[in-house]
Amino acid sequence: MSTGPDVDLDAIAREGLMAPPGAVTPAHDGSGRVQLSFTVVGGQDRSVRVPPGVTVFDSASWNGIAIDSTCGGHGTCHKCKVRLDVQTPVSRHDRRTFSPTELEQGWRLACLATATRDLAVEVPPLTTRPKAATVGVGRQVILRPAVQKRYVELVAPSLADQRTDLVRLTDAIDDLEVTVDLAVLRRLPVVLREADWKVTAVVVDEALVDVEPGDTTADRYGIAFDLGTTTVVATLLDLSTGTPVAVASRLNKQQPFGGDVISRISATMMDPDALGRLQQLASETLDELALQVCTEGGVDPAHVYEVAVAGNATMTSLLLGIDPEPLGVAPFVMPTAHPPVVLASEVGLHLHPRARVALFPALGAYVGGDIVAGMLATGMDRDKRTRLFIDVGTNCEIVLSDGDTLVSTAAPAGPAFEGGAIRCGMRAADGAIEVVRVDPAEGTVVLGVIGDTTPRGLCGSGLVDAVAELVRVGLLDASGRFVTADAAKESLPLLADRLTQVGEERVFVLHRPTPDAEVADCVYLSQRDVRELQFAKGAIATGWALLLEQLGLEQDDVQQVLLAGSFGSYLSPASAIRIGLVPKIPVLRIVSAGNVAGEGAKMALLSVRERVGAATLLDTVEYVELSDRPEFNDRFVDLLSFPGGA
Amino acid sequence: MSTGPDVDLDAIAREGLMAPPGAVTPAHDGSGRVQLSFTVVGGQDRSVRVPPGVTVFDSASWNGIAIDSTCGGHGTCHKCKVRLDVQTPVSRHDRRTFSPTELEQGWRLACLATATRDLAVEVPPLTTRPKAATVGVGRQVILRPAVQKRYVELVAPSLADQRTDLVRLTDAIDDLEVTVDLAVLRRLPVVLREADWKVTAVVVDEALVDVEPGDTTADRYGIAFDLGTTTVVATLLDLSTGTPVAVASRLNKQQPFGGDVISRISATMMDPDALGRLQQLASETLDELALQVCTEGGVDPAHVYEVAVAGNATMTSLLLGIDPEPLGVAPFVMPTAHPPVVLASEVGLHLHPRARVALFPALGAYVGGDIVAGMLATGMDRDKRTRLFIDVGTNCEIVLSDGDTLVSTAAPAGPAFEGGAIRCGMRAADGAIEVVRVDPAEGTVVLGVIGDTTPRGLCGSGLVDAVAELVRVGLLDASGRFVTADAAKESLPLLADRLTQVGEERVFVLHRPTPDAEVADCVYLSQRDVRELQFAKGAIATGWALLLEQLGLEQDDVQQVLLAGSFGSYLSPASAIRIGLVPKIPVLRIVSAGNVAGEGAKMALLSVRERVGAATLLDTVEYVELSDRPEFNDRFVDLLSFPGGA
Repeated sequence: MSTGPDVDLDAIAREGLMAPPGAVTPAHDGSGRVQLSFTVVGGQDRSVRVPPGVTVFDSASWNGIAIDSTCGGHGTCHKCKVRLDVQTPVSRHDRRTFSPTELEQGWRLACLATATRDLAVEVPPLTTRPKAATVGVGRQVILRPAVQKRYVELVAPSLADQRTDLVRLTDAIDDLEVTVDLAVLRRLPVVLREADWKVTAVVVDEALVDVEPGDTTADRYGIAFDLGTTTVVATLLDLSTGTPVAVASRLNKQQPFGGDVISRISATMMDPDALGRLQQLASETLDELALQVCTEGGVDPAHVYEVAVAGNATMTSLLLGIDPEPLGVAPFVMPTAHPPVVLASEVGLHLHPRARVALFPALGAYVGGDIVAGMLATGMDRDKRTRLFIDVGTNCEIVLSDGDTLVSTAAPAGPAFEGGAIRCGMRAADGAIEVVRVDPAEGTVVLGVIGDTTPRGLCGSGLVDAVAELVRVGLLDASGRFVTADAAKESLPLLADRLTQVGEERVFVLHRPTPDAEVADCVYLSQRDVRELQFAKGAIATGWALLLEQLGLEQDDVQQVLLAGSFGSYLSPASAIRIGLVPKIPVLRIVSAGNVAGEGAKMALLSVRERVGAATLLDTVEYVELSDRPEFNDRFVDLLSFPGGA
Repeated sequence: MSTGPDVDLDAIAREGLMAPPGAVTPAHDGSGRVQLSFTVVGGQDRSVRVPPGVTVFDSASWNGIAIDSTCGGHGTCHKCKVRLDVQTPVSRHDRRTFSPTELEQGWRLACLATATRDLAVEVPPLTTRPKAATVGVGRQVILRPAVQKRYVELVAPSLADQRTDLVRLTDAIDDLEVTVDLAVLRRLPVVLREADWKVTAVVVDEALVDVEPGDTTADRYGIAFDLGTTTVVATLLDLSTGTPVAVASRLNKQQPFGGDVISRISATMMDPDALGRLQQLASETLDELALQVCTEGGVDPAHVYEVAVAGNATMTSLLLGIDPEPLGVAPFVMPTAHPPVVLASEVGLHLHPRARVALFPALGAYVGGDIVAGMLATGMDRDKRTRLFIDVGTNCEIVLSDGDTLVSTAAPAGPAFEGGAIRCGMRAADGAIEVVRVDPAEGTVVLGVIGDTTPRGLCGSGLVDAVAELVRVGLLDASGRFVTADAAKESLPLLADRLTQVGEERVFVLHRPTPDAEVADCVYLSQRDVRELQFAKGAIATGWALLLEQLGLEQDDVQQVLLAGSFGSYLSPASAIRIGLVPKIPVLRIVSAGNVAGEGAKMALLSVRERVGAATLLDTVEYVELSDRPEFNDRFVDLLSFPGGA
């Protein structure tokens, strides 16, 4: 595993996956971020930023840093040894693994050590070549990639043994069923003879994709893509070991066509050339990332034989060049739930010429392959607990399991979480306020800002934090209205001067660049911003409320809420509860699940069994269309208000 | 069925499939040719030339002329009514089918009427839309093409019915299992909506290859190709009825690289560009023929969804662009026995963009897909008789069945049959002597010449005839040596002056352009020509002799000899027996089987069951490699001589 000098760490940080060294660390009260600085022995050092409460093991795993493990993070294999710079609680597994001196030196099992504050983590070199890899939310995957290699030394043909070249090869790799296409058949006779009958067969699923001279079994790679509407993440995996070799992310190059799926679908409806252009941009995005991770990992792109792509239905259609219009207009119909197997070259990737693309199947037009991947990564169908999975975004996908039955739906949350339609809104980039803490006694407003720089605007998690804090301290009432200036002066005198107006609209000033700056030059939260957030969270809450009803459950039956996606994972669980975005349950039951779509894509690459599991999910999970539910509107109105309290 | 004005009938005639009107008709003594002039009511008139003894039905069938039939030419359905211009023998089936007046008018069942002389044949219009078609040598094929079409009128989607486009379609055609590729998936949403959910699904095997607006079920075509080393024949078939629509043939454009497979393989070994060029020429040959039959038949090439190709292993490899070198050098190994399914566009055909190519599997490097097709067409594996199948050519393929076990081999006959290495040799084109009759009493030599023109040379069947006649009249002895001039003058005074010399070599003059022409300007048969033919027939006879031995059979156990291929079918059975090319059995047991490779290709297009049958043949037929048999040479020397007699 290496991180080459070409990695644009800043770009990755802007996408919210990692923070550059020295990023601000807010108070660790169960919200905000903590920073983990990994020193990898024999590898490249890396810093990552995660919500507090995530284990050191998961923090590493989400960011492509390999730590020894065979049990999948359950504390049983005692292999995931790391050394921390501070004393964290010692578990009984730690005691059985380490000597008192080692414990004193900071050695802990990474899967049991929770990051509740900034940590420096020393990671020993990998000692095992794992037969299993840990991915997703504590999911352990037995390695059985679709990509298989077999080195064989064949007996040369003779008049007494005139078996065909193909039969000679397949007889020698008879543990695999293979089909052969014309391109490989053209190479086969030449390579067999040039390599003196010593070759490596490369098989993906049941397709013989190449015959390589000599023994190339050590070179077996795949790339897992999380093809998001906003951000695309690529992880290069060594399929022999299950180890991530390099990770990279960048903005989806389709951005100029609009920030959300609807605007991109609209573009194709208005301009006949837009579909081709969007397809091209999706290809370029993936191809640039593929080249980047290969360069970074020192891997020849020709040794990448498969990629897995988890994307929503629109992203998947656009990548494949399929007209997305039916996804965008009622009754929201997909071309197919199971995308066909295509060659990576067909979608513009410059990898092995016959590398294949495994695309995740989709449940519905708005519960796409990214969510199926997320369900796989979080084991939604294998956990007996009542769990709620929420991928927060412009389109919010929700899955509920009572440990037996699975239901899913999509809620149109609108652009608020992406910073859209918010007066001072911006994406989660440098200068965006992402954490807000209001102290009424001190009269202070503490801000966590991405890039540790001057605040320029408010991103989605900052918006949620700001509203939650103002509800908590009483500057916003349960209906979402700012209290009167008089009431504010009376109850919160130290904060009352921040409550002012821009034009006719009431606002709360979060950051004033200079003491005498005009309000219009400040970063503020407006009354309309609050309304936007209310509509968004109302739609989401209506979604899970109706799903709970469908399974006959109450809010506090939910044993775990998984906040997923690059945005959802960075929400403050406390704030999410406070504004009613998630059911009102103890904060520790709210888990930031990380980039679960990308984790699901990794699982698909590492295990054909998991891939079958993804396909099975489609038969297991019922898709509930909310837009034709008569009770939707009443419920929505009920859920616009804020439950309040802390 | 039509023959458009663009057909080059002369070109077809040169390839020996049909004769232009007015071609010479030699004496009908069981050798030579007879001409059948078909008048097709509602169709195009055609003349064809076949060996005497072939039924009118087969003569029509081999040449793509449809005659009603459901029984497959067994005299039971009484549907194949034709009217002949001469009185032929009346069978009991004829009596049960026709009134005495009709019989008097020349009406007969085509499957029972044998063409022993020139005939004019009136063919009534087709009255039945057959569920079965008769192809090959009396094989009846139940129509079940791989190409299937289904017209469906789908219910438009709604919020209550959000089935995907693909599931909506496949639910409506649930008698077919289909897979879908990216190209079709791109069209699907667009076509379904533009056509208001009324579409025709086009399925080839299990692949959904297109969705066409409206009802296009009537337009369903395929092309059967016999891809010969010398000649390529294309038959356009209406897959709904099994009827041939048009037929065309032309020389294989690879000719400049040599007349036989070995010279073409050698070309690829000496010039790295030759493989690409040969592939290109094969593609062009097939594509030009495809365009020709489509134009002739008035069929849009986009309605051709499948082609079947029967070719030997080298032709198949070259068409696919696979290096043929291992086929040409010991131990003669094929890349695969089962060529992969490829798109017609991949081999350069301009038909439906996702039309598929079904290539026949091969038994061995020298018993290729053409022979497997021929075995299918002649029912080699389904007939309880002891039968010998011989495809005579540069490489001669031989299959023997005792009604139970099937064995096959290949014999290297050399170029003699193609007119190669023969002093006055030429291909079977205008001016070639193809029939020779010597009358010792009259002292005459009667020649049948292709194109009814001045003799220019001797083609393969003429060579066989000439040698057989000279053996019969005693000018050649059993060892293949011309008798002495003195002996000739004594026993055959009227012919003796034709026995002369060119340089040191003794020759027999077949045609003298002017009475005082130099011998070198005549068409003659030389002593070395006789030796060439002896080597060729010796190799072939050794092949079938060893196969007979393998199954413990004697020559006269053979109940039928099938002479196959565009050359073998035109051999005189009597002459073939006389020179020992075939076992010494009654002449009526020698059957000219016609272009059986092309017939097999038609069967594959018309019936998936027959296609499975072809694949099954590979497990059924044992391939016997002769080149490592120690007894081969002794047997070969034994079989060089001529059995003689008539």
